[in-house]
Amino acid sequence: MNISHIEHLGIAVKSLEQAIPYYENVLGLKCYSIEEVADQKVKTAFFKVGQTKLELLEPTSEDSAVAKFIEKRGEGIHHLAFAVEDGVANALAEVEAKEVKLIDKAPRKGAEGLNIAFLHPKSTIGVLTELCEDPNK
Amino acid sequence: MNISHIEHLGIAVKSLEQAIPYYENVLGLKCYSIEEVADQKVKTAFFKVGQTKLELLEPTSEDSAVAKFIEKRGEGIHHLAFAVEDGVANALAEVEAKEVKLIDKAPRKGAEGLNIAFLHPKSTIGVLTELCEDPNK
Repeated sequence: MNISHIEHLGIAVKSLEQAIPYYENVLGLKCYSIEEVADQKVKTAFFKVGQTKLELLEPTSEDSAVAKFIEKRGEGIHHLAFAVEDGVANALAEVEAKEVKLIDKAPRKGAEGLNIAFLHPKSTIGVLTELCEDPNK
Repeated sequence: MNISHIEHLGIAVKSLEQAIPYYENVLGLKCYSIEEVADQKVKTAFFKVGQTKLELLEPTSEDSAVAKFIEKRGEGIHHLAFAVEDGVANALAEVEAKEVKLIDKAPRKGAEGLNIAFLHPKSTIGVLTELCEDPNK
């Protein structure tokens, strides 16, 4: 697998309305987009930090995975997303051959139109890991 | 505060010996340095991913903060470190004036000779946040 950079870091928060002012006023970052991702039951807010984005995730339903994460572990860093250069489908096939457990067997659409897939944290030493590619690059 | 990029991401692991092969063989990253940081009671392994480093942290003592983190939450992402452009001391003064709680009142030396300081996760919406500057840049 050829990872070029960290595409984004997903951060679970209870409320975008409360979290965005911290990221803007304390850290001096700028929220450039707010987007609802219906199938993950989250509302997201994006900030750019160098090559990487911070993606704040507010659950829109009590049964979203992010709501369950917050209930169990509190607010905090939820997942780590790598940009892969040779396609998410190829990367999935490669890691599956190495006996890595997958959450997504095939790429699906994520926020910002990226092709994405999640690996299972049981195979990634506790880090919920996402692979991403921008189909327009 | 002027954040240029994510300097590194700290990831708590029980064993570098078990974790390094995953990062190298599955993700295709290369461990370029292993370093013991005595005052934080951890052994660290570094990988470069674009602008950012991944810093695996193995506790060297049961009373290290990283050991307590693993005991409470399991292995996983431990902290997020931003590179600041105008000095860590200035950034600390600025955020303290905004009533952010600090772990370190003044910069201290971290891995790789960086000047570092931690903000308190109670003020940073659950994300243990480190500010860094490279004194040689």
